[in-house]
Amino acid sequence: LLIQLRDWILSKIGEDWIFLALLGIIMAFLSFAMDYVIEKMQEAKLWLYEELSFSLSLQYLCWILYSVLLIMFATGFTHLVSPQAIGSGIPEMKTILRGVVLKEFLTFRTLISKIVGLCSSLGSTLPFGKEGPFVHIASIVANLLGKLSSFKGIYENESRRSEMLAAACAVGVAGTFAAPIGGVLFSIEVTATYFAVRNYWRGFFGAVCGAVVFRLLAFWFKYEETLTALFKTNLKTDFPFDPLELLAFSFIGVACGLIGALFILTHRRIILFTRKHKKMSAFLQKNRFIYPSLVTLIITSCTFPPGLGQFYAGQLTHRRAVDELFGNITWTTGQADDLDEEEILSHWKHPATNIYVSLVLFIVMNFWMAAICNTLPIPAGVFVPVFTIGAAFGRLIGESMAAWFPNGVKSGDVIHKIVPGGYAVVGAASLSGSVTRTISTSVIVFELTGQISHVLPAVIAVLISNAVANLFQPSFYDSIIRLKR
Amino acid sequence: LLIQLRDWILSKIGEDWIFLALLGIIMAFLSFAMDYVIEKMQEAKLWLYEELSFSLSLQYLCWILYSVLLIMFATGFTHLVSPQAIGSGIPEMKTILRGVVLKEFLTFRTLISKIVGLCSSLGSTLPFGKEGPFVHIASIVANLLGKLSSFKGIYENESRRSEMLAAACAVGVAGTFAAPIGGVLFSIEVTATYFAVRNYWRGFFGAVCGAVVFRLLAFWFKYEETLTALFKTNLKTDFPFDPLELLAFSFIGVACGLIGALFILTHRRIILFTRKHKKMSAFLQKNRFIYPSLVTLIITSCTFPPGLGQFYAGQLTHRRAVDELFGNITWTTGQADDLDEEEILSHWKHPATNIYVSLVLFIVMNFWMAAICNTLPIPAGVFVPVFTIGAAFGRLIGESMAAWFPNGVKSGDVIHKIVPGGYAVVGAASLSGSVTRTISTSVIVFELTGQISHVLPAVIAVLISNAVANLFQPSFYDSIIRLKR
Repeated sequence: LLIQLRDWILSKIGEDWIFLALLGIIMAFLSFAMDYVIEKMQEAKLWLYEELSFSLSLQYLCWILYSVLLIMFATGFTHLVSPQAIGSGIPEMKTILRGVVLKEFLTFRTLISKIVGLCSSLGSTLPFGKEGPFVHIASIVANLLGKLSSFKGIYENESRRSEMLAAACAVGVAGTFAAPIGGVLFSIEVTATYFAVRNYWRGFFGAVCGAVVFRLLAFWFKYEETLTALFKTNLKTDFPFDPLELLAFSFIGVACGLIGALFILTHRRIILFTRKHKKMSAFLQKNRFIYPSLVTLIITSCTFPPGLGQFYAGQLTHRRAVDELFGNITWTTGQADDLDEEEILSHWKHPATNIYVSLVLFIVMNFWMAAICNTLPIPAGVFVPVFTIGAAFGRLIGESMAAWFPNGVKSGDVIHKIVPGGYAVVGAASLSGSVTRTISTSVIVFELTGQISHVLPAVIAVLISNAVANLFQPSFYDSIIRLKR
Repeated sequence: LLIQLRDWILSKIGEDWIFLALLGIIMAFLSFAMDYVIEKMQEAKLWLYEELSFSLSLQYLCWILYSVLLIMFATGFTHLVSPQAIGSGIPEMKTILRGVVLKEFLTFRTLISKIVGLCSSLGSTLPFGKEGPFVHIASIVANLLGKLSSFKGIYENESRRSEMLAAACAVGVAGTFAAPIGGVLFSIEVTATYFAVRNYWRGFFGAVCGAVVFRLLAFWFKYEETLTALFKTNLKTDFPFDPLELLAFSFIGVACGLIGALFILTHRRIILFTRKHKKMSAFLQKNRFIYPSLVTLIITSCTFPPGLGQFYAGQLTHRRAVDELFGNITWTTGQADDLDEEEILSHWKHPATNIYVSLVLFIVMNFWMAAICNTLPIPAGVFVPVFTIGAAFGRLIGESMAAWFPNGVKSGDVIHKIVPGGYAVVGAASLSGSVTRTISTSVIVFELTGQISHVLPAVIAVLISNAVANLFQPSFYDSIIRLKR
């Protein structure tokens, strides 16, 4: 009877839609659980660090060991269970969607390897992203789901299978940010060159199912403060559209285009460097823990809060950092209205330097860290680190503008104050757009911030940064595809 | 020298991009000018009406004559200059983009006919839309621009030409609402089944160029209040996401799906009815002014403010109506904080009835008016009327919810007040989505309202209404294509 009921439901609604809804729901659960684990792990590190405040050396040891151990675990686990889980996953999905068969890329083993590896690598508080791995995870889930008896039809028909994989990519991106619209567009831009409108509807449907479940979960677990609108902004501005500010936004676009191209180049150079030296390469192959631990050691030493980290907010996780960079207050004026804002200022204002130095240091340090981290043999993405760097760059420009025009910009009869948080939003969209070579990042930032007032500046900056980056380098994902050939 | 310079610039940047930028800019100017003319014409009618307040019969005469004359002028002008300008234009563009050649559809004559006809038909304050005609206008502009000597390359290469036409459709939609992101998606959904990601970038670029110029124009002409964020909302809600409210939103989706299907059916029935009766059809063909004037006469009589119009805000233009429907106050409570809000209430609250009657009347009357108006032989679209009806329906549900749960909905420990304006936004997206069979309307409403808080409810309602409408009827545009065969 149950089977009959199932068949009847399937035939009525169409198995595709049930498939997509299921996929969205499963991904929402997975994503929610992983977010929770990762956040707890990151909090644990900070908690340990705070608890050991009586001894600086112990603090240092714990700060480093925690990350090194996690990274080593991730390296080992990924290597043993399934090396296919290494890296972002988007380049591989792009290859698969073009019809190439990658062996063992969509198996259950890889799923486990990716999930566990991702949790431990992100838990280490190193600058990793999760949107690429999520795309990969969603694709694997779709693939496994297709093998279930009820959905045999989808699995056996080659073209329908690839349709569903394309939709799965969309669900994956959307699940990372709880941003259904931008997520679908991003996945299309990143994986496809031609696209069926039908697939876009499918992706949308799956993504929305996921987003709804995700928010309901967040709601039921009273977890709102960190999850609803991921980086909720409350920028006080009605009309961010003075010609002079437009110039500043265009400048952000150009600069982010160059920074993005430089990032892609740096990343490729690092990989080619380790490959070129045959001896080193062989040595690293044999002792595969040395490279990751060394990198982690260096990076965590650099971020150690009482050390170098104090000059550029080293103790902040990416999420906290973005939250503060998108904040509504202007740092240069130094006015804080309440305790929360005072805390933000204390992170970025060091008595010995000033906020410009902090921001520049933050950008430079995170730039090379993110580039190196993405060469480690563990599951990791690039979107979030780049997004953060972009936000810091935008904030830098915004703060400079605010310092140069302390009374705001006069446009017509009205004087508009400069809102540096808006610049940070634009910068984040612009840099992540130029690295991934997409323009949908401008949509993603609105869904992330829940505010749409800066839509035009962001879109302009993203278009410019894409054009500029295109002159020098292929997209980050295409660069990886070329390296793997 | 100038020609050399031009060639140099063209070769450096790529003529495609210059072409798109030009297209966007031209469309922005056109759109701005037309908006201005249309608004002045609509204001003129209301002004005349107010001025004649000493005599009811004179008022009535002017109310009707103004519209009848304009519609007759539109009918005559369109017929004489170029009958290809009749109707929305989206169905025809869909056909052209599939490779069919429609004669004289993209000529300068048609452009003139469409622009003048659209201005006078919209100026008559009848329920017409302009997004379809704008798509048509943008396509003609693109076609004419391609014939210029500098862009010969684009015109001669068949595939590039259709790429540019696809981008032009995007620019057209985006220009109507100053909503670049939603506009591009809408045009893709409406005109394409497969599309290249490259085209999507092109459309985006053109649309953004247009949007920037449009906003700058609006800014320089101090025209902000009506044009910047077209229907700026300021809904006071952080978390519109209670399971109970979700149910209400889903209900809006289902109902809007049914209403949308009914609308398409009604529209087709009217056309088939006038066609079926051979005699009548021949009579109308010969006396082509009779049908439009008769329809206009009936409709304006029905909206005459001191007559039937007083019961359902008949004197409001669509823009005003949507603005008020999206408003932040709850009408049922009847509290107005300032004069503006009092005015809104006075439009919708009639001493002899109540707001529910007003809203239902508004929906029913506008429903058949919009359906009939779209059968007139003049340039006119369907999006805005349907959008308005949807907003009224959403407001109706929202007000009912607010009346049923006057203390708000308890979710967890927090009690959320019902915000009927949010329901109106969801309803507008949902009904326009089901009639045009697109889901990007949910994106358009955010760009229109400048507020993204209701993104999930809107997307859910739009998905449901699309699915429901799909069971009964093809999309409005496909229905027209079938009728024209």
